[in-house]
Amino acid sequence: MQMAQKPSIPKGTRDFSPVEMVKRNYIFDTIKTVFQKYGYLPIETPAMENLSTLLGKYGEEGDRLLFKVLNSGDFLRKIDNSDLEEGNAARTATKISEKGLRYDLTVPFARFVVQHRNEITFPFKRYQIQPVWRADRPQRGRYREFYQCDIDVIGSNSLLNETELIRVIDEVFSKLGVNITIKLNNRKILSGIATEINAPDKLTDITTAIDKLDKIGIDKVYEELQSKGIDENSINTLKPIISLEGSNSNKLKTLRSIFSENEEGTKGVEEMETVLNMLDRLEIKANIEIDQALARGLNYYTGAIIEVKADDVNIGSICGGGRYDNLTGIFGMPDISGVGVSFGADRIYDVLEETDAFPNQVESTSKLMICNFGEKEAMLALKILEELHRLDIKAELYPDTVKIQKQMKYADQKSIPYVLLIGEEEIKSGDYTLKNMETGAQHKLKLSQIVNVLKE
Amino acid sequence: MQMAQKPSIPKGTRDFSPVEMVKRNYIFDTIKTVFQKYGYLPIETPAMENLSTLLGKYGEEGDRLLFKVLNSGDFLRKIDNSDLEEGNAARTATKISEKGLRYDLTVPFARFVVQHRNEITFPFKRYQIQPVWRADRPQRGRYREFYQCDIDVIGSNSLLNETELIRVIDEVFSKLGVNITIKLNNRKILSGIATEINAPDKLTDITTAIDKLDKIGIDKVYEELQSKGIDENSINTLKPIISLEGSNSNKLKTLRSIFSENEEGTKGVEEMETVLNMLDRLEIKANIEIDQALARGLNYYTGAIIEVKADDVNIGSICGGGRYDNLTGIFGMPDISGVGVSFGADRIYDVLEETDAFPNQVESTSKLMICNFGEKEAMLALKILEELHRLDIKAELYPDTVKIQKQMKYADQKSIPYVLLIGEEEIKSGDYTLKNMETGAQHKLKLSQIVNVLKE
Repeated sequence: MQMAQKPSIPKGTRDFSPVEMVKRNYIFDTIKTVFQKYGYLPIETPAMENLSTLLGKYGEEGDRLLFKVLNSGDFLRKIDNSDLEEGNAARTATKISEKGLRYDLTVPFARFVVQHRNEITFPFKRYQIQPVWRADRPQRGRYREFYQCDIDVIGSNSLLNETELIRVIDEVFSKLGVNITIKLNNRKILSGIATEINAPDKLTDITTAIDKLDKIGIDKVYEELQSKGIDENSINTLKPIISLEGSNSNKLKTLRSIFSENEEGTKGVEEMETVLNMLDRLEIKANIEIDQALARGLNYYTGAIIEVKADDVNIGSICGGGRYDNLTGIFGMPDISGVGVSFGADRIYDVLEETDAFPNQVESTSKLMICNFGEKEAMLALKILEELHRLDIKAELYPDTVKIQKQMKYADQKSIPYVLLIGEEEIKSGDYTLKNMETGAQHKLKLSQIVNVLKE
Repeated sequence: MQMAQKPSIPKGTRDFSPVEMVKRNYIFDTIKTVFQKYGYLPIETPAMENLSTLLGKYGEEGDRLLFKVLNSGDFLRKIDNSDLEEGNAARTATKISEKGLRYDLTVPFARFVVQHRNEITFPFKRYQIQPVWRADRPQRGRYREFYQCDIDVIGSNSLLNETELIRVIDEVFSKLGVNITIKLNNRKILSGIATEINAPDKLTDITTAIDKLDKIGIDKVYEELQSKGIDENSINTLKPIISLEGSNSNKLKTLRSIFSENEEGTKGVEEMETVLNMLDRLEIKANIEIDQALARGLNYYTGAIIEVKADDVNIGSICGGGRYDNLTGIFGMPDISGVGVSFGADRIYDVLEETDAFPNQVESTSKLMICNFGEKEAMLALKILEELHRLDIKAELYPDTVKIQKQMKYADQKSIPYVLLIGEEEIKSGDYTLKNMETGAQHKLKLSQIVNVLKE
């Protein structure tokens, strides 16, 4: 055993107290219930993946942010003086570490689909709610361990899936009481724009720049485009496109005319139109807004791009995703199209806190605490407790015979709404004193009456 | 992007398919529901703990089995030639790794209690259901990532807690439909035995040996004791004690007389008697059996020792725990007594599989799939789907317009009990064809009638 020490946890990680857990579970349960209602089924993958699965999938920055797990046993034999002299930590790491912690749920999902392709019924509708780990610099709202809630359909090209995901988003946030705006774009519209301004080869630079529109403003976007070698002329063509405003149908009309000679751009507009037409006939509570500047990093999206913002809290995106046509290709299974979104549980938590939208969760705690007056009384209390538990009433007996004030304080701090007092007098009469902790009112009641109060 | 490769996962880890997830969630949900009914509240701790928290807590073997996470950034600067020359992997690991994966839930819980002592209401009744990781050699039924389900009360000496935990165990397994025997012992009885045979200093050797009684048989136990320097005389005294059989009350009577001059042993017998007396007055379904050879590794137990075996499947212990008087002492907070047990979800899963005790979990999948006959039909299907979802009926629309056989196969493989056919004819008449996938029966029904069938 080591010496006593002041314990702490790694930076960027968190403990969750019962109060926080109850709120987090409320979010997860709401999300899960909606996912299941739409026919999505759960899977789970291991926390550790082979580094060969993870490396090269998230860009250079992502590789650096992977948590790598040291090989068991005598890893030292794998490195020698030349490694020390060379000082290339990334390369040496691959010699002494072959596993890493999950960085997101998308790559493990792609790996899962390829590995289990023969057992899976396609289209495969799955959800996955698990933590991911990133060695990012911790800051407010950014953690090194956080949960993702992903929902994807893989193996279907139909735009009904995009429509369904928007319905799922709408229902989740409506159930959670969060007003949202769902922003929509399509990778093909972004490609169309790049072609339109004669820079189809600079698609990534263009989207990276205009993706920052919200954060840095339009002038800085133009500056960045210039610095990437996009000429004056192109930027002037781009201006009216990305500053396009008005209703969705107006935007679509304008984009359609801009793309009159542009096949890919037109395809993007048509896909968007099809989805919006379906949604028009359904009852959607969320605002839906075409945002032709939305890119979300883009790398693997090939069709729809989706992002959700809370209307009443300024916190960035709380959900997002899109269609990807070749995610499983990296694992040797090409041409499988998928579409999915990921819900950010931590930000949703913050939104619910800020808008005071968490319901009163008395449900999680005991409905009743029986005070402990001593051995004889506790014996009767145990019998009563057994009866309450048989009726599925959450209840507990204070375990120690300590001062009644201390016991009351415990009930109070745990937000237990009722306390039952069983003293010598009560044992004789068979009437027990039930105290309402909120009002302070006390009543002498028979057990059957107590059950009725608790079942209310 | 890397080259295509056949993907796999690290040995000893597992993917969980939807079918497995539904079964696992059934176990977790049952356990959670019972935990909450008895007033236990959930916490969660990070997957990674500081190595200073974990090292030295699980013995030398445990230190070796910890998964260590490589420090981010330039870890190479921390080691030099002398490390390579020395070749001490364990010592070098501490230079390049300061975090490790959770090995169990007990040490993180102790760390949590000490770190949050000022926010916690004691006695603290918490449960925790999270994965743990051990670099053990994988074998049948032993994994490198597996879930533990822990329940503990900390900050109370009362034997009511032991009684409660046995009630929790009894209710969990009764709900799961598993017949069990709960074996009970007490560390003080083991100490008493060691004193009785004049080897109080050899308590660990004695308990380690007799703990193996089930596995290696009584003769091998005696051999092991001899090899540890326990003399013939002591072993002869030990024989009748550990081979003690008969009813619990007989065992207690005999132990009491053996310990007539032995304070600690007598205390152990009395504690056991108190718990058994309480349980006698309650309705417990499980067999409860005193097992004076039960030790469970022992190191930190100071009072009750509890172990659960399935009666109908030979699989080792499926739940176990005990009382520990000084778990938080290692983190500088002495004299806090706790008692808890841990449920082994993986073994419970195997028991339910072997005894065919999983309920039919059609609940998890959609109740209805609507076939997709084309764009126009899908539009109507979307409206019907919206109505069913509003009524909280799990339902989905097949997303692609493919051959009906393929759609039916999908419903069949996902165990969806009903399929709805909406063709051109059905759109005209307003009567939709509902097919029962189990019987094959088809009926033309109005939407309201379909809802009634699905709500049944």
